[in-house]
Amino acid sequence: MDQVWSHYKEALDEVEEQIKKGLDSEVPLINQVAYHILNSGGKRIRPLLLIISAQLCSSIDKRHIMLAGMTEFIHTATLLHDDVLDNAEIRRGIPAARMLWGNQASILVGDYLYTLAVCQAVKMENFEINYLLSTTCRRMSEGETLQLVHSRDLNLTEATYLQIIEYKTAALLSASCKLGGIIGSESDERKEALSRYGRNLGIAFQVADDTLDYVADRARLGKTPGRDIKEGKVTLPLLHLLQHCSSKEKTELKKIIKKGAYRKKDLSQVIELMERYGSITYARQKAQDYANRAKNDLAIFNDSIHRQALCSVADYVVRRDH
Amino acid sequence: MDQVWSHYKEALDEVEEQIKKGLDSEVPLINQVAYHILNSGGKRIRPLLLIISAQLCSSIDKRHIMLAGMTEFIHTATLLHDDVLDNAEIRRGIPAARMLWGNQASILVGDYLYTLAVCQAVKMENFEINYLLSTTCRRMSEGETLQLVHSRDLNLTEATYLQIIEYKTAALLSASCKLGGIIGSESDERKEALSRYGRNLGIAFQVADDTLDYVADRARLGKTPGRDIKEGKVTLPLLHLLQHCSSKEKTELKKIIKKGAYRKKDLSQVIELMERYGSITYARQKAQDYANRAKNDLAIFNDSIHRQALCSVADYVVRRDH
Repeated sequence: MDQVWSHYKEALDEVEEQIKKGLDSEVPLINQVAYHILNSGGKRIRPLLLIISAQLCSSIDKRHIMLAGMTEFIHTATLLHDDVLDNAEIRRGIPAARMLWGNQASILVGDYLYTLAVCQAVKMENFEINYLLSTTCRRMSEGETLQLVHSRDLNLTEATYLQIIEYKTAALLSASCKLGGIIGSESDERKEALSRYGRNLGIAFQVADDTLDYVADRARLGKTPGRDIKEGKVTLPLLHLLQHCSSKEKTELKKIIKKGAYRKKDLSQVIELMERYGSITYARQKAQDYANRAKNDLAIFNDSIHRQALCSVADYVVRRDH
Repeated sequence: MDQVWSHYKEALDEVEEQIKKGLDSEVPLINQVAYHILNSGGKRIRPLLLIISAQLCSSIDKRHIMLAGMTEFIHTATLLHDDVLDNAEIRRGIPAARMLWGNQASILVGDYLYTLAVCQAVKMENFEINYLLSTTCRRMSEGETLQLVHSRDLNLTEATYLQIIEYKTAALLSASCKLGGIIGSESDERKEALSRYGRNLGIAFQVADDTLDYVADRARLGKTPGRDIKEGKVTLPLLHLLQHCSSKEKTELKKIIKKGAYRKKDLSQVIELMERYGSITYARQKAQDYANRAKNDLAIFNDSIHRQALCSVADYVVRRDH
């Protein structure tokens, strides 16, 4: 994966410049808050996917750099709102924006970054791009709301869980890949293949993320593990555990999930049960399945360094430890 | 003004239908929250302005109805976020959405309504419309952030106050008017006249609103008066008072503003001082000045029932008692 990052470094550096240049509000607080979160060490996975997809289709030009910056603005807008929704104190190992500037600023700068992305998209005067980005953003807010609706829902099904993560996470990753093909004027078939690749990759990414929340090392994760269960998010490992543990254990788990703010030993107990019932293994395998599907989606493209790069990204998202 | 409402009733009824039809998310909670606030008795001033402006320019068709619905979605999105920012308990005489479904749902449904409006705008495939709506939304979030920056700022100038309300309120009213001219393919000159009318009307509207916060009757206002000073919003009447009262009174006012959650008698004291120093009269006059400017902006149009209607709206926004 290191090779992938370095191969596209030049374009990604241009994206960084683009992001910095975009933060030009006449209200300094907006630039300050946005700069804080945009420079907190995000992986830039969406820009990377867009750049590789563009190269896979033809070559990159400054419109791809613009679009890559927009995907990061949209992603960052959701992070600012997520941190308010989740009362998060830490993001990527540093204080969340809301801890430094408050919830109000986080909500408003989130709103701003989203409108900034829309403004930039509109300027490109390409309806296909505008249509894709706007429907993606709508899907994302639907996914977040669906997650809220199913907060602490012990009867959440795997199908609904997958719908939630497809909407809240995979939609933007899918759009990032497809955008690479739109400007390259690819055939609908090839654009759809990129879209499917991004969707499956996105699901793999989120399932891996949800698993890491239970097993990752605190320092590497950049946030406190076990946050999901604390916030009432029933994710795949927990969902699997609830479906396979004994009824006595289930009663115990219900108590832990319902009360939300639990003790450290509650989390250890949950993780121990997950290990015993293979819930972590199950979730990891599920993530790998989706990563494999993503790689298969690329079969339509000739083998190339760029197709290989997308395959490496698919492997990376499920194997990373943070 | 009653005549104005009834003259455009048919088109406004179509806008209501359009709004209802637009709430078709597959996530029922979104429709429920959005329906609650959209049916809480909002005046629909933005749709009204758009419809009158369209008629003034040519005639209305279904695109104007669509656009009018969008302005209301955008407005409603900001209300949902505002209520979270302000910890508001009541909106238009009924519980704020956040009191019924929580802050999280209010933030997310606000995000959704905004993206819904963008999706609908994109479908119209008109760059001028998309450009206007997206820059307007960016301005609005800048205005809200600027207001936050100047929270409890005793040195706020009238110029900055006017900038805040121009961005947070007048921008969307201005856009609503201009949209009426865009589809009618009006000359740039006439579109700009509509835009200026809406901007000045919007400033008049917000100054009047900020004055009503001190003097309106609770029942008619649909919310508790005196909220602005409680939330640290320094608006025109208070700004005027701070500039004209004695230094002893200023010290007392500072205390009241700083502590935020003050007693009922603090508010009475502030209002009494405002009456004594003519701050309410000053703010009312300022609102009237902007309403007059708005009316003058229409000089470019021939006299017609529609031009008269826009003048009536200008008078109405400064004379209303809630």
